[in-house]
Amino acid sequence: LPDKLPHVGTTIFTVMSALANQTGALNLSQGFPSFPADPALLALVTEAMAQHHNQYAPMPGVPDLREAIAGKIQADYEVDYHPADEITVTSGATEALFAAISTVVQATGTGGGPDEVIVFEPAYDSYVPAIELNGGVPVYVSLAPPHYAIDWDAVRAKITPRTRLIMVNTPHNPTGRVWTRDDVNQLAAIAEAHNLLIISDEVYEHIVFDQDTGAGRQHHSLMTHPGLRERTFVCGSFGKTFHVTGWKIGYCLAPKVLTAAFRKIHQFVTFSVPTPMQYALARYLQEPERYQTLSAFYEQKRNTFLDAIAGSPFRYIPTEGTFFQTLAYGHLTDEPDTELAIRLTHEIGVASIPLSVFYHDRRDYRMLRFCFAKDDAMLREAGSRLKAWA
Amino acid sequence: LPDKLPHVGTTIFTVMSALANQTGALNLSQGFPSFPADPALLALVTEAMAQHHNQYAPMPGVPDLREAIAGKIQADYEVDYHPADEITVTSGATEALFAAISTVVQATGTGGGPDEVIVFEPAYDSYVPAIELNGGVPVYVSLAPPHYAIDWDAVRAKITPRTRLIMVNTPHNPTGRVWTRDDVNQLAAIAEAHNLLIISDEVYEHIVFDQDTGAGRQHHSLMTHPGLRERTFVCGSFGKTFHVTGWKIGYCLAPKVLTAAFRKIHQFVTFSVPTPMQYALARYLQEPERYQTLSAFYEQKRNTFLDAIAGSPFRYIPTEGTFFQTLAYGHLTDEPDTELAIRLTHEIGVASIPLSVFYHDRRDYRMLRFCFAKDDAMLREAGSRLKAWA
Ligand SMILES: CSCCC(=O)C(=O)O
Ligand SMILES: CSCCC(=O)C(=O)O
Repeated sequence: LPDKLPHVGTTIFTVMSALANQTGALNLSQGFPSFPADPALLALVTEAMAQHHNQYAPMPGVPDLREAIAGKIQADYEVDYHPADEITVTSGATEALFAAISTVVQATGTGGGPDEVIVFEPAYDSYVPAIELNGGVPVYVSLAPPHYAIDWDAVRAKITPRTRLIMVNTPHNPTGRVWTRDDVNQLAAIAEAHNLLIISDEVYEHIVFDQDTGAGRQHHSLMTHPGLRERTFVCGSFGKTFHVTGWKIGYCLAPKVLTAAFRKIHQFVTFSVPTPMQYALARYLQEPERYQTLSAFYEQKRNTFLDAIAGSPFRYIPTEGTFFQTLAYGHLTDEPDTELAIRLTHEIGVASIPLSVFYHDRRDYRMLRFCFAKDDAMLREAGSRLKAWA
Repeated sequence: LPDKLPHVGTTIFTVMSALANQTGALNLSQGFPSFPADPALLALVTEAMAQHHNQYAPMPGVPDLREAIAGKIQADYEVDYHPADEITVTSGATEALFAAISTVVQATGTGGGPDEVIVFEPAYDSYVPAIELNGGVPVYVSLAPPHYAIDWDAVRAKITPRTRLIMVNTPHNPTGRVWTRDDVNQLAAIAEAHNLLIISDEVYEHIVFDQDTGAGRQHHSLMTHPGLRERTFVCGSFGKTFHVTGWKIGYCLAPKVLTAAFRKIHQFVTFSVPTPMQYALARYLQEPERYQTLSAFYEQKRNTFLDAIAGSPFRYIPTEGTFFQTLAYGHLTDEPDTELAIRLTHEIGVASIPLSVFYHDRRDYRMLRFCFAKDDAMLREAGSRLKAWA
């Protein structure tokens, strides 16, 4: 049997969650809520099942859900179109990303060799395997703490005739950084100059902080930029937005011609995703305040965690978006981050994710990621254990 | 944008179901039940959601479900092992097939060129796109009505140093034929002689007919054959077995070393599938009679449909397995099957699937496929309309 992904083992999320379960540690590693989803949303699934919505959904997704997403996009981003026909419902953002990458990336592309894909590091761990399974080559632009700012000259220097695609993720997992308007404009200039396609992972679109004080960064969806919209696949997730990561309902938004190509792949990867959840989400989306309050909800959780470690010697910038906070500890101990993540799980019962696993060369800035999508008591306890340890 | 699947349009199932909906025809095209699923199964989903099983399932599947499937396999096939660690839960059999094909097939394989995959035609329409997306080459063995018998010498003649994989589907969609024990032995001899891998699509394993009279063929799962088990990915589906095609929960069973490679791919294609459905199915499987009665249930439906067309000039062999009946009409009209399927939808309000779409060269034996997973009134009405037309 060939090993098509020789560099890949089991994802870090599986490894750390398993260790957390095994040791009984507070699991701040894998990104999922510890608190319940809204019973009203669950009731809508029960209702849809009772209404016999248990057979295949249409391959692109249930029309009611595509309409609801289109309406949501219009309202959220004040775009002047209703893109129901540009949406495909997928098995979570993971399948959206996989199918979008499969749609674009070729082993022998227009540049005559394997397509090259610009990947900013640290990078979510599914991007590169999907690129490689399609015969593409990742070209890394490596970002460094504390600000993970993008040097756009460095990006331009990596563009070759084989470059085909740029992977974007904002708000960014694992760093919690949010792209600026200038980042988006710089990307647009490069993409237009070199006729590149973009995949934009925006699953944390509704989790951005410090908007009221004006101190925070706004989320700039790539779908709102006229030069980018026509060349971008935007991937979204209901699991993140409605506290149901296990339902695995996401979507991909892309212009019609890209969507047609995307669906050709999607129809043979999964064909469709669970019908009762699609109806439930379509109905749940009718009340937009259900996700418009999400930033405030998670801002309080971020602050609860940061309050609990306040005064500790960890170094950090409060997260701008996502439900992850990174902490730098290199001035405290020179232990590699993968070792420290395991040691803290065993010794103080707090599981986290080491950031080095998101760099292809395992570059280690001595950073750990903590998920704060947890109940407040867990956040306070984890924070105080970390503070005591530090 | 490249077109990675230039020969592929929208799947015939989407096309015909859309036409049936649009015209108000009886939809005997796409394979899904028209009758409700068991309320007890739906209630188990509601229960699992209330028990907070709404976050990511473990990537290989919920342990309770993998245990339940392993127990089921032991009981059904009297195998002497409990393969919970050889099972991965997938987004329907479609993802199981896609991920298994992606695990095996390489653009540059051990034969020095693209891997070749033996595909029996007529073939379910997701196999070949998945092979091609992975850079493989389908090598067709074409079977003909009425018996669709396999000429094993013809198979042997197609084996080359590049052959890597054979796709099996029994009970067979769309023909309703079931492999014989001799077929399985012939396959085993070839696979062992040439060290080939097998993917066995057995989603209709619990739908085989005429067992009581002894006239029917038994289903021989490839997992029960000692020479095949070690080289086979078996794909199963709960959607077919429990009348919930829209839930999209399937699985892949394969020996540990194949499963490890399979999971490497699966974790980046979908990662996991809906947690509440997995818990519900794990509990529902505790009562095996829930699927052990399925053959009798569908045998009655097949007979209802055949009774309704009895005396018509259609030619057919009663289906041996699956919930599809094919009818030959070439002696009545020379119309191409794709045209007749559309015309019957419009003119008599009965939608079906033309078999020519399952041949790469669109070979047309003037055959239509009718799904009899429908309520009895619909089957009687469709049958009598067909009989009147013929
Ligand atoms: C698919 S498991 C990983 C969940 C997640 O997005 C994360 O923890 O970063
Ligand atoms: C995924 S839609 C097709 C359903 C099916 O298996 C069939 O009709 O053959």
